[in-house]
Amino acid sequence: MFTRCVRNILSRSAFTVTLKQHSWRRCSTSQTETVDQVTTLLQLCVDRFFVSPGHANVELFQRGLCCSYGPLGMELRRNLLDQWWHSVTRSGAQVLGINTLSSSSREAPTGGQGQLRIVECELLKQRLGQKELSKERLAEEVRMLLQMSPSMRTNLLQGALEQFVPSLELVYRKLPFGLAETGLCFQPAEGSGCSAEVTQTSLVWFCSPRTSSQWLDHWTRQRLKWWRKFALSPSDFSSNEVQQEELEQAASRGVRIIYNFPWGQEVLETLWSRGDAELLHIHKGDRSKLQHRDGRKSIPHVVSITANMDRGAMAFLSNSLQQLKREESKQKLHQRKVLKLHPVLAPIKVALNIARGATVELRQICEGLLQEFLEAKISVWPGYLETLPTSMEQLNAKYDEMGVLFTIIISENTLESGLLQVRSRDTAIKETMHISEIKNFLFRYISAADNI
Amino acid sequence: MFTRCVRNILSRSAFTVTLKQHSWRRCSTSQTETVDQVTTLLQLCVDRFFVSPGHANVELFQRGLCCSYGPLGMELRRNLLDQWWHSVTRSGAQVLGINTLSSSSREAPTGGQGQLRIVECELLKQRLGQKELSKERLAEEVRMLLQMSPSMRTNLLQGALEQFVPSLELVYRKLPFGLAETGLCFQPAEGSGCSAEVTQTSLVWFCSPRTSSQWLDHWTRQRLKWWRKFALSPSDFSSNEVQQEELEQAASRGVRIIYNFPWGQEVLETLWSRGDAELLHIHKGDRSKLQHRDGRKSIPHVVSITANMDRGAMAFLSNSLQQLKREESKQKLHQRKVLKLHPVLAPIKVALNIARGATVELRQICEGLLQEFLEAKISVWPGYLETLPTSMEQLNAKYDEMGVLFTIIISENTLESGLLQVRSRDTAIKETMHISEIKNFLFRYISAADNI
Repeated sequence: MFTRCVRNILSRSAFTVTLKQHSWRRCSTSQTETVDQVTTLLQLCVDRFFVSPGHANVELFQRGLCCSYGPLGMELRRNLLDQWWHSVTRSGAQVLGINTLSSSSREAPTGGQGQLRIVECELLKQRLGQKELSKERLAEEVRMLLQMSPSMRTNLLQGALEQFVPSLELVYRKLPFGLAETGLCFQPAEGSGCSAEVTQTSLVWFCSPRTSSQWLDHWTRQRLKWWRKFALSPSDFSSNEVQQEELEQAASRGVRIIYNFPWGQEVLETLWSRGDAELLHIHKGDRSKLQHRDGRKSIPHVVSITANMDRGAMAFLSNSLQQLKREESKQKLHQRKVLKLHPVLAPIKVALNIARGATVELRQICEGLLQEFLEAKISVWPGYLETLPTSMEQLNAKYDEMGVLFTIIISENTLESGLLQVRSRDTAIKETMHISEIKNFLFRYISAADNI
Repeated sequence: MFTRCVRNILSRSAFTVTLKQHSWRRCSTSQTETVDQVTTLLQLCVDRFFVSPGHANVELFQRGLCCSYGPLGMELRRNLLDQWWHSVTRSGAQVLGINTLSSSSREAPTGGQGQLRIVECELLKQRLGQKELSKERLAEEVRMLLQMSPSMRTNLLQGALEQFVPSLELVYRKLPFGLAETGLCFQPAEGSGCSAEVTQTSLVWFCSPRTSSQWLDHWTRQRLKWWRKFALSPSDFSSNEVQQEELEQAASRGVRIIYNFPWGQEVLETLWSRGDAELLHIHKGDRSKLQHRDGRKSIPHVVSITANMDRGAMAFLSNSLQQLKREESKQKLHQRKVLKLHPVLAPIKVALNIARGATVELRQICEGLLQEFLEAKISVWPGYLETLPTSMEQLNAKYDEMGVLFTIIISENTLESGLLQVRSRDTAIKETMHISEIKNFLFRYISAADNI
């Protein structure tokens, strides 16, 4: 099933790779091992409900595009987007959230090149069915319909530039401030005629011309720090300055934040210092509307910070997968895969299970705890609902692959003494704890990880 | 600016309205008053940064479609979506979140009627430019390109039905369970050739055939309770059974949740008991894949629960706007507009301001409090950044229209005694409080409102 994916990886890696050694036990990364790693990662993502099955879907995922996510992948990306949102809106800097439309009838700034438009099928078919028209007239009518059809956005920058004027009012006409948005953007997929969706995050920062380069540096530091905060091996995230010859038209400087995938480097986020040309263009050169209070007739400069959070989710999955090998006996090579996702990103914080011999009372305890966790906004997995017998070892292996932080085992002993067993994903150590302490323990553990 | 909107409202209300008396001081709702109400509401939404300015944008908003939201509207809808998410995923029922693509190449179930497709402009223009083709061949080529282009989803049901099989595995093949998703859906806009975006929430519930009608009732109760929880005047939200002749093709029963707008009733949410036909159709009749553990060969039935959260945000804005009139003297009619949004929905919980005579020390206190609130995830408005003189009365009027729950005034007195003034939006009463107590006070106030 994954052979084609892996073939793709290999052909791509020939172009881009400078493979680095990960901190965990990979002695050397030969090409075969890279393939193994990638296959293992993708297979795990499907088996453990991060990504929906199906070759085409997994390929989207691997290419850093939006795909059909399973419940765990959905929750991971949701956590990631929440963290991004909090990091930009609660940074102390003046950042306002906005929401713009994903399609619009305005002329795209690229002049139509590679544009995607939403066409109403019936209307187009009606045009095509007009018998009396000449061929030229028909082509002309179809072109006009196309011209009238709304185009899909390829980024969130345009919307933010348009919202600059009303937002300036809201911040008392003072700079600097930023407009934040997350949402789907659409890109033509090479060759296939298909379109590709990407979940982007965008912070568009408006500042005085003389400070724009400093702000670019500021946001680069902030963003790199943010990516690394959640990483198991932070050095896989890095930033580099865009070379002069690769700069976008309007930009005076650019920085890329990059992740080292097993198959090579890919861009997660791009920061551009864009000057004021686009802002002036969108507002038709009306300088008076654009001036801030301390402006002395200068127009704000724009720094744009755009990330791909689908690829971001993929990067953290890749970064957090540890494969630990241990020879148990001469015949048996024991291999443990653990998805050591950061506590705030992990889609499931705790799993609730019952030791051998489930009774009505034990299930009731589980249901009580489940409710308690849900109220404390701790996501919980109701493992006790599974009635087919599973060994503790199988269960732990499964939860480790799902990235579940802690597994709680309720047993007969819990009924008598109130004690339960808590196993940690990261240490594989089992502790005994009183049932009254467990919620606070989890809450403190997650908060502590959040505040580092 | 709004006269056209208002004209639209009037023409629409003739068809749909059965106007109800609101609880607040509207003695009679003549048509003129309805127009006044709607104009006031829409104007306030623009002035107070809920909705971006522009006639076309405000019209989208009023029609219950996704529009370009300002910072306050964005935050309101975000809060609403969060509340929906928590209410379905933390209800104790087994609900899994998923994320599916907004466009897909699969054949739409409606057979192409009214479909929107994403077309790559360049490809279509290339086809049109082929000189050597006959007219018929040209039309055929365009049709083929259209056929290959991905279609935009009109609802979230299809994606959830597709995800049923992998999800069934995750819940140990046990019923009932649900798949939850929120996202943009696209609809052809009548006549205009434009498309319209709607932010939908979808819970697709899979249950045994004999319980589906009970589940429909269960979810109707839950959903109506949810809408009313956040309402100032809950009786404006109601539900009614869909008449036999209006049932969708596959459905055996349907319920609508309705809001009484000043211009008439509009549907916020629809619940359908859909049977198993669509599930079987999507999985090509492969019954063995669809059977749950206690199935005895029966196929799960589907209950779909779909809401429009753009219209939902509009409903809560409309529901929470109170216009209070008071004659101060014979000449002056004092009118106060207060947006009494529910504490968990209010986009800004607290505004921080400085009394006359701002000094460096007072600003530092504000910045300290700002940081403290942000860390406690209490959204705060930095009113102290405004340096133009504003009277306290103007300030309160503005914050009331923004729906800000509390306004804090820091003064010289705060420096001496640690005391600050807190004004409540809902009572307009000012209290004195010690600076060390304010965060906990706000936190408790919001949590209490959440838990009712």
